[in-house]
Amino acid sequence: MADGTGARNETIVPVILSGGTGTRLWPVSRKAYPKQFWPLISGRTMLQETAARAAGNGFAPPIVVANEEHRFIVAEQLREADAEGARIMLEPEGRNSAPAITAAALLIAETDPDAVLWIMAADASIADTAALLSALGIAVRAAREGFIVTFGMRPTAAETGYGYIERGPALDGHDGAFRIARFIEKPEAATATALIADGRHFWNSGMFVATARTLLAEMERLAPDVARASRVAFDARQLDLDFIRLGAEGFRSSPDISIDYAIAERTDRAAVVPAAIGWSDVGSWSAIWEVAAKDASGNAAMGEALIEDSARCYVRSEGAVTAVLGLEDVVVITTPDAVLVTHRDKTQNVKSVVDRLKRDKRPEAEAHNRVYRPWGFYESLIQGDRFQVKRIVVMPGAKLSLQKHFHRAEHWVVVAGSALVTRDAETHLVRENESLYLPLGCVHRLDNPGRIPLTLIEVQSGAYLGEDDIVRYEDTYGRS
Amino acid sequence: MADGTGARNETIVPVILSGGTGTRLWPVSRKAYPKQFWPLISGRTMLQETAARAAGNGFAPPIVVANEEHRFIVAEQLREADAEGARIMLEPEGRNSAPAITAAALLIAETDPDAVLWIMAADASIADTAALLSALGIAVRAAREGFIVTFGMRPTAAETGYGYIERGPALDGHDGAFRIARFIEKPEAATATALIADGRHFWNSGMFVATARTLLAEMERLAPDVARASRVAFDARQLDLDFIRLGAEGFRSSPDISIDYAIAERTDRAAVVPAAIGWSDVGSWSAIWEVAAKDASGNAAMGEALIEDSARCYVRSEGAVTAVLGLEDVVVITTPDAVLVTHRDKTQNVKSVVDRLKRDKRPEAEAHNRVYRPWGFYESLIQGDRFQVKRIVVMPGAKLSLQKHFHRAEHWVVVAGSALVTRDAETHLVRENESLYLPLGCVHRLDNPGRIPLTLIEVQSGAYLGEDDIVRYEDTYGRS
Repeated sequence: MADGTGARNETIVPVILSGGTGTRLWPVSRKAYPKQFWPLISGRTMLQETAARAAGNGFAPPIVVANEEHRFIVAEQLREADAEGARIMLEPEGRNSAPAITAAALLIAETDPDAVLWIMAADASIADTAALLSALGIAVRAAREGFIVTFGMRPTAAETGYGYIERGPALDGHDGAFRIARFIEKPEAATATALIADGRHFWNSGMFVATARTLLAEMERLAPDVARASRVAFDARQLDLDFIRLGAEGFRSSPDISIDYAIAERTDRAAVVPAAIGWSDVGSWSAIWEVAAKDASGNAAMGEALIEDSARCYVRSEGAVTAVLGLEDVVVITTPDAVLVTHRDKTQNVKSVVDRLKRDKRPEAEAHNRVYRPWGFYESLIQGDRFQVKRIVVMPGAKLSLQKHFHRAEHWVVVAGSALVTRDAETHLVRENESLYLPLGCVHRLDNPGRIPLTLIEVQSGAYLGEDDIVRYEDTYGRS
Repeated sequence: MADGTGARNETIVPVILSGGTGTRLWPVSRKAYPKQFWPLISGRTMLQETAARAAGNGFAPPIVVANEEHRFIVAEQLREADAEGARIMLEPEGRNSAPAITAAALLIAETDPDAVLWIMAADASIADTAALLSALGIAVRAAREGFIVTFGMRPTAAETGYGYIERGPALDGHDGAFRIARFIEKPEAATATALIADGRHFWNSGMFVATARTLLAEMERLAPDVARASRVAFDARQLDLDFIRLGAEGFRSSPDISIDYAIAERTDRAAVVPAAIGWSDVGSWSAIWEVAAKDASGNAAMGEALIEDSARCYVRSEGAVTAVLGLEDVVVITTPDAVLVTHRDKTQNVKSVVDRLKRDKRPEAEAHNRVYRPWGFYESLIQGDRFQVKRIVVMPGAKLSLQKHFHRAEHWVVVAGSALVTRDAETHLVRENESLYLPLGCVHRLDNPGRIPLTLIEVQSGAYLGEDDIVRYEDTYGRS
């Protein structure tokens, strides 16, 4: 790299944290398929954008730390994005960033304790990659001397949704890097206005750069509980398919704490590199409107949206045609099973809607109608009294588990591709426009032996149609 | 009737005009299934509310004049509402109210030229039926003396969406009735404010009361083209099932003109009965919000709606859960295939959205995803490349036409009820959880011989899946 990260970029390891749930971007982002897996700014998902940004330049392949539940989504998106050599480390459950980063540092330290971790969220947007790489060069040099370096984003507005960093004196011998005077929690509006006026305060981007050795030493010293739990989880890790699965017991015993609280705000080795890189945490629909392409009236439209006589609106449809007429500063998000309409100034409060849906035990709070599985996905087309219709798409070469149901029979109609179906002792090749009946209680398996995705329509019939009426005998993906 | 319409209520014939398209209530109301067929104010549809209001009190059974396309919807809704003896007169196409009313007057004059027509729209709301009947009594007495009487609604606001009537001198011997000084087109806001201040101006409700004799004589005199065309259409009428189908050629030759322009505004026999009956034309989402039940913040919610931190909003969902957060005076309407979000002050402009969708040849402009047929309904669940899945519901005793398709094969899976299926020379009884395959080109028919509705899932497969790929050989409903 020409800009000075040195000749040893292969010892810079991007660590991508994919643990967020993106609740404020409901109804597109939901716990089961959150923000980082959606294309929000470009045609690529946030995770893919992040992986692309961390690729090339001789960097080591990234380590993605993700929730166990999302493992197949992460793997598929990395595969699509040609993120070669990426390793996926699985958290049994979310415990915030400190244990996730510690586990990644332990993995990296096994081969090179002096390698530099470049830690980033999977769901931020950065417009100016060249400026980012330049700032990274400064950060890496400081990190190699034992500092834990964060990036200070030059504020473009008196933002109350971000934490701030106040820089201290310049770091000797490191042009562009400073000691950190203090961290400031998300401020009130008046405070934010004061903070951005003096040029010494920056948004805390949540990116960190440090060597594995420094991180582990500081974690031992300042957050020994986290260090210990992460070590136990790491030592109990298992390789499962292509995943590094952390030990559940150890991981769960860690405090639920961010890297900021655990060490960054307490260490005397903290440094900040101020940078103007067009960063956004894409933390709300309002933030997405900010970075979206807009028409002359300031409206941004995605999908089947139609905007008339309106200004400064963000309208996104993942389904039904959505018409907005005579409004200002309104956000409208349409998905197949949920619609959100809110003022642009209120998008920080979307969580209250999700909380209310959760209290009402509505599935729309946390899950989408389309459910991703290691073999493809399914979605419910209609649920009636004693019947349900699903579309099932199976990727080439993939197969579902060998299973049976106690309460439902199924009709399968193949509408694209070919299915190899095991039904008790028989095997059938079912082609496009052919169907097969699976009586209640039969042991069956669905396999796509072909080169193109298999689409079938499943009509279920029975008194109970819950997803939990399934007995798995054998599964390619470790689920039996 | 105690309030003085006299002992001869059986000679009062309600004439219900069901010709509107209710475009401003898109996306619920669309041309193929417009406003008057939806439950907008109560659990009953507007047509059913109207028919109930015109029933009892010894009135003759109503005549409903409706568009040919809507005949089965009208018949089904009247049947559901127990509107016994109702006659349904079909317009081959909409030509506004003058020819429709003339044809109804001709029908009534055949048995009693002195019978009184009580003409009303199928899609207005009236809160105070007692006050309505009282005003009707006054109107009927004047009508029997040769007047064409309208009702003047006491204005409750400086409404710019309605036409106004200025009353003239009192009608001698008819307490509560007045001659009409002039009709005033929808005014500007300032004019409207002036109009409602003097107590002499009223909203024009579009209800009329007159004898068949008076109406026909005035139509001959003032609008002879309408009178002639309606006469030709009436003489060529055919009884088709339970419908009176007007002659298409004659009807189409009539000018497209309202009763107001054709005679009411030009006759010297016009009279007005002022009345406060809680009338609304329910002509926009804002008007529906006005009459809807509201919470303490003035919000009205229908269906799966969730409103937080908002005021004076109207939120209606016919499908996806719809959350509204931090907004004021906003209307949100969710349907399975279209969403409208607009300011309450802009609901008069919804037509511009529909016009734009029409220009873009979007089906959502005029048709719903669910399509009603004489035998029941169907709806598309998903359309893919070379396949489509539909839910088909067939009423007990109903049957589809004998038909075939050139470009698609169909799989039918019965999920409720029983189907009697004719497939070429065979007949099959297909029960719940059974399926049948209909190869491309076979001649087939679907019949529900049972006592409960039949639901089946149809999976279509083929290169062309348009509704027009159908050859009908025989049809119970006169469509072959």
